[in-house]
Amino acid sequence: MRRVGFQLRVAPDQIEEYKRRHAAVWPDMREALSRSGWHNYSIFLRPDGLLFGYVEVPQSLSAAQAAMATEEVNARWQTWMADLFADNADGTPADQMMLELEEIFHLD
Amino acid sequence: MRRVGFQLRVAPDQIEEYKRRHAAVWPDMREALSRSGWHNYSIFLRPDGLLFGYVEVPQSLSAAQAAMATEEVNARWQTWMADLFADNADGTPADQMMLELEEIFHLD
Repeated sequence: MRRVGFQLRVAPDQIEEYKRRHAAVWPDMREALSRSGWHNYSIFLRPDGLLFGYVEVPQSLSAAQAAMATEEVNARWQTWMADLFADNADGTPADQMMLELEEIFHLD
Repeated sequence: MRRVGFQLRVAPDQIEEYKRRHAAVWPDMREALSRSGWHNYSIFLRPDGLLFGYVEVPQSLSAAQAAMATEEVNARWQTWMADLFADNADGTPADQMMLELEEIFHLD
């Protein structure tokens, strides 16, 4: 198991919409995440839209993203979300904009 | 159990020192954290010094901080760390500067 921390930026004027959608993530999206090895996954949001994700994956973030890329629901979800991110005029899927952060301390 | 995400800012010119110290946290500090209910605690660092913490605590971040405040080693540790944080000319302990973030999504 590997612990992953990552950052993303939600557009400031889309924060409430981002929260609404994440309070009701589609059941098939949740199932696809679990099936793809995304465990103990939390998203935290700063009031200005800076987003911090924490997730435990079997190997690496890139492997867990590759597993999600094989799930049909993921393409639909990412397309639906793309407009909510900052600096994303070209509609890049969020999972290609995640900035992985270095874990410098851990205590079980 | 409650999942907590928080932010802090390490001074840009102290990032390497911060990493060095967190690669070798004192054993009595680690024991005090465990005894005070800090579980599955990770610290992630962005290259510019923005820090994200993730920790699972019994009740709340403030209760876990209050428990640490009763530990003698915590005062020594916080004093030793205070110079490493950004915008901290008055030496405020880091545990009083943590910005707790809202959890807006979770998947077990």
